[in-house]
Amino acid sequence: MQAVHNIAEICARHGITDVVLSPGSRSAPLTLAFARHPALTVRVVPDERAAAFIALGMAQAQRRAVVLVCTSGTAGLNYAPAVAEAYFQHVPLLILTADRPPEWIDQLDGQTIRQHNLYGAHAKGAFEFPADTTHADAKWHSARIINEAINLAQAGPAGPVQVNVPLREPFYPKAGEAIQYEQDVKVTRELPGRPQLPSSVLAEFREALRTTSRVLVVAGQQPADTDLLLTLHRFTAAWQVPVVGDLIANVHLPVAAGYDQRLRPLGHQDVFMAVPEPGLKEALKPELLITFGQSLISKSLKLYLRNAKPAQHWHIQAAGYQADTFQSLTKLVRMEPADFFGALTSPPDPLSKREGEPDVLPATESFGSPSPLERGSGGEVFVAAQDATRVATKPAPTGPIRLEWPQPEQLYGADASAKAAYLKPWLAAENWATDFLQEFMQQPEQPFNEFTAFHHCLQFLPDHAALHLANSMAVRYANILGLPQGQQVEVFANRGTSGIDGCTSTAVGAALAQPERPVVLLTGDVAFFYDRNAFWHNYPTPNLRVVVFNNHGGGIFRIIDGPRQQPELDEFFETRQVLTAENTARDFQLRYFPVSSFTELESALPVFFALETGAALLEITTDSKTNAEFFEQYRAAVKAAFVS
Amino acid sequence: MQAVHNIAEICARHGITDVVLSPGSRSAPLTLAFARHPALTVRVVPDERAAAFIALGMAQAQRRAVVLVCTSGTAGLNYAPAVAEAYFQHVPLLILTADRPPEWIDQLDGQTIRQHNLYGAHAKGAFEFPADTTHADAKWHSARIINEAINLAQAGPAGPVQVNVPLREPFYPKAGEAIQYEQDVKVTRELPGRPQLPSSVLAEFREALRTTSRVLVVAGQQPADTDLLLTLHRFTAAWQVPVVGDLIANVHLPVAAGYDQRLRPLGHQDVFMAVPEPGLKEALKPELLITFGQSLISKSLKLYLRNAKPAQHWHIQAAGYQADTFQSLTKLVRMEPADFFGALTSPPDPLSKREGEPDVLPATESFGSPSPLERGSGGEVFVAAQDATRVATKPAPTGPIRLEWPQPEQLYGADASAKAAYLKPWLAAENWATDFLQEFMQQPEQPFNEFTAFHHCLQFLPDHAALHLANSMAVRYANILGLPQGQQVEVFANRGTSGIDGCTSTAVGAALAQPERPVVLLTGDVAFFYDRNAFWHNYPTPNLRVVVFNNHGGGIFRIIDGPRQQPELDEFFETRQVLTAENTARDFQLRYFPVSSFTELESALPVFFALETGAALLEITTDSKTNAEFFEQYRAAVKAAFVS
Repeated sequence: MQAVHNIAEICARHGITDVVLSPGSRSAPLTLAFARHPALTVRVVPDERAAAFIALGMAQAQRRAVVLVCTSGTAGLNYAPAVAEAYFQHVPLLILTADRPPEWIDQLDGQTIRQHNLYGAHAKGAFEFPADTTHADAKWHSARIINEAINLAQAGPAGPVQVNVPLREPFYPKAGEAIQYEQDVKVTRELPGRPQLPSSVLAEFREALRTTSRVLVVAGQQPADTDLLLTLHRFTAAWQVPVVGDLIANVHLPVAAGYDQRLRPLGHQDVFMAVPEPGLKEALKPELLITFGQSLISKSLKLYLRNAKPAQHWHIQAAGYQADTFQSLTKLVRMEPADFFGALTSPPDPLSKREGEPDVLPATESFGSPSPLERGSGGEVFVAAQDATRVATKPAPTGPIRLEWPQPEQLYGADASAKAAYLKPWLAAENWATDFLQEFMQQPEQPFNEFTAFHHCLQFLPDHAALHLANSMAVRYANILGLPQGQQVEVFANRGTSGIDGCTSTAVGAALAQPERPVVLLTGDVAFFYDRNAFWHNYPTPNLRVVVFNNHGGGIFRIIDGPRQQPELDEFFETRQVLTAENTARDFQLRYFPVSSFTELESALPVFFALETGAALLEITTDSKTNAEFFEQYRAAVKAAFVS
Repeated sequence: MQAVHNIAEICARHGITDVVLSPGSRSAPLTLAFARHPALTVRVVPDERAAAFIALGMAQAQRRAVVLVCTSGTAGLNYAPAVAEAYFQHVPLLILTADRPPEWIDQLDGQTIRQHNLYGAHAKGAFEFPADTTHADAKWHSARIINEAINLAQAGPAGPVQVNVPLREPFYPKAGEAIQYEQDVKVTRELPGRPQLPSSVLAEFREALRTTSRVLVVAGQQPADTDLLLTLHRFTAAWQVPVVGDLIANVHLPVAAGYDQRLRPLGHQDVFMAVPEPGLKEALKPELLITFGQSLISKSLKLYLRNAKPAQHWHIQAAGYQADTFQSLTKLVRMEPADFFGALTSPPDPLSKREGEPDVLPATESFGSPSPLERGSGGEVFVAAQDATRVATKPAPTGPIRLEWPQPEQLYGADASAKAAYLKPWLAAENWATDFLQEFMQQPEQPFNEFTAFHHCLQFLPDHAALHLANSMAVRYANILGLPQGQQVEVFANRGTSGIDGCTSTAVGAALAQPERPVVLLTGDVAFFYDRNAFWHNYPTPNLRVVVFNNHGGGIFRIIDGPRQQPELDEFFETRQVLTAENTARDFQLRYFPVSSFTELESALPVFFALETGAALLEITTDSKTNAEFFEQYRAAVKAAFVS
């Protein structure tokens, strides 16, 4: 079993710290190897579906691979939903599935399925650990595989990798026998290079940016990234282009106070894109669309862009498969978005300057520096949660870092006015939407309903929280409403596959990985009850706050067109369910706050969110029909209110 | 959508009656097609993992395919554990996964994964429904696929088949618009032939049976099958060979009272194989092992047979992959077991009679008939639950059917004494085990514990019940203890993959499919809480009785050698869990009986099992350490008690 014990050592050497395992006998050698390793924290979660989403939540928070260990048989298949989510959301997972040795597959033994490549197209790779490591080459192979698997899981785009580990009896050391970890274990590190494009190509990009008035940047889902946010802000300041991002793009995070506040990324596209105003739609049409990150929540923005058919669409993505989300893709730019925006804001290499290209001067000496964080004469910089662990232990920003922003006229003054003419309607639409929401959400005498209750909750979020939004309505409500401006809240949602299956477990994983950081989950009742086993383990999460919006069914089906006109709505779409969260709270010792009115909600929220009082569950009971009616009023009001 | 609506019609024409669906928008056209079809019963289960196991339980009970419908994305991945179980347990499922059309895969749209061949090696087949059926050939293709998928799912060995159904918007008909089902829809039926071997080969088998004294028949998991049981009993009577079967082999079912009671299949192998008696082991050794069915529960029998290395091992299996469970396989006989045993009990074809073969005469005129059910001068025949639906509505046997059994001396008198010498120690071992258990389980002043509580429950099972045994300890306890002799209880367990993940849902499915038949689930706490969403739907199961043996953890790890010697036992193997079933009972309105003593158990059981009072949950709380100690006493007593 030495080769198996070494797996734990190799993981630790790669900086992995956390293991989530589910009990089993076949997997016992892995369990013992990880449990006894001094550098690894092992947690046991009996339901493998929940275990895998918990690992995903931890890996999201830690930004490194988390190890999953399960026994043979269908245990590993219960990981499948989380594996697919990790694959499409680019979250690194190292999945160790214990197995019988190959000669015993399909021989009618218990807990034996066909585990080779168990996750098919939804894993980045699948390795077979050797069943016998007595030969020196086999031992080298065994260590090599683990190194390859970890490197592959963490290389961009990160994702899940399976290592199937066949194990023969005996599984257990003798009583009192120690496990040895070889200290000269093989470690192969992968040093990721960052792709750069030739300066001649960058010069072409600059030229396009210079000559195109209608340039739009759209951010898809991605974790908070300070470097990217800083270069993105510089880029937008330099070129005076609008940036639009859903909450899950995390471009709403306040990075610096020193830049042009007008140019903060826009987030109310779900509101202003809903207005039936051809003039506005025309005014917003891009000629050049630049995108980065993964999926959008905003269906209206997505459909708008598909319909707008920009002449150019550049998608910035260092690696991974090609997606033509808006049916207009012309360039797939193989760079990290931070490098792309940085390169296009830095002064061009003088050698590559082409005839007719404008002179570009840095605003400050530090402008050309590869590091976005500069101590200069600008405003404060708030460091976004790039390293979640660090943020967890230091929730407050570490203090102002002063930064110089390039002024547009210093860069591309000649284009400023044309650019401004395109920017203006975007800013106007965003401002209008902000004002509209503020007014609409504060109407007097509205009935208690989900949408307004949701709005209330967003106003009370603890600063520096990790906000987890469940599919399907929670993430949509949040994207419509937005966060209070300037709030330092990083947003997570399982939008790789948009499933409801593991939203709670993902939040639990986040809470476990960052015990000092508040983790708030906003979820509907169907997603909540679906994944109740998220709480079924022995690890406290005092920093976790779960808000369940219980309308006793899949309320989304009453809101979207189509199902609500069908006689089958109640039974086959919305599917009424009678549960309340009270018994779940009782089962798992969560402080429980049931509310069903504005008064109750307002008095509960401060206590609920208070930091010191332990894990809590707030259940907001609303009526599905009232919710649908109010949301319909909202949609009608959006359409009626906009005056271009 | 006509081609999609026709799916429901084709299913109905094939005799499918039940559909389990989980809510979704992409799947709406399928939902509506099934929900509105007059011949189909549709049930909605929100958690796809539970939904798939519920469908599996229904298909087991109905012995025909049940349809599963889910939306796109990870919904279908949550089916995976049940799909693997269905594959290895040979249960037919038709899985319809709604999908985006192929051009939108990998384009960062929501709920979009790579659904083609989603279940990999664990589905019998995977079809892609055409995205566009306007061309006549495409429409033919669409209907052809559904026919092929149903036929493939139901052909032996039955199993799960996926049809991935890409759907474009609009998904919903206009309000009030009706769905038409084409009445001339394509239906292609598959008529399965039964493989027969040439009489010359059968004659060789007969010769081997005649000349071999030590012939043993071992039955693996299979559903109850009257035809098989009758021919098997004839075979054993004719050849005087012992038959051994675990509970899941369903050979314990009383088929006929007219045959030699000594030759009823043996079931206490878990007891007598545990005795360390080389003399007994030697006496039981077969020269020719004949097996049929799927897996064994009894690890001791399995290991014994692997060690015994019979010179010949014939496995009787009409179709499906080859398994060499005992490492001695010499013949894979491609016949249905019922046909095999029938053919070897019928008189041989006179033309194929070889020189030296003994004359064989039928005991009665009816002996050579292909039908096992004869009205003659024998005893009563109890018809086992071959058609569960029929049994559900007619729980009592339809009356005595008289049957002639061949007398061994009439058939192979010359061999009777040699055969008897081998049969004797098997019968002695079984009788000894029966007596031992009876005595041991009735010891006075034993502490309340799981094993004895389990024994109590088995004595109270309603007649004609479907007994579902959860993995992992429940099925083992039951296999050790056995059912009271002569009880008409069919036994089910998810031993295709032996997972704990869907045991409750499978029982719920059985209860839904046969509302008049008592369905009893015996389960441990880990399997029970793992799969609590089995109850999360709106369909009553008044015939369901769930007994939860709650020892607050994976008690099996305290019982098996290996983990119980490790310091990690409590935290990483047994994994203490604090839940009781009370809140679950409250959530799902199950009558709840908590017991923690023999007195409480004895007074609860009759009320709990009473038929008219609705779904109920009996929670038997025991102490894991006491359980392990008592089980250890049991094991020690087995070893000490046997005198050969």
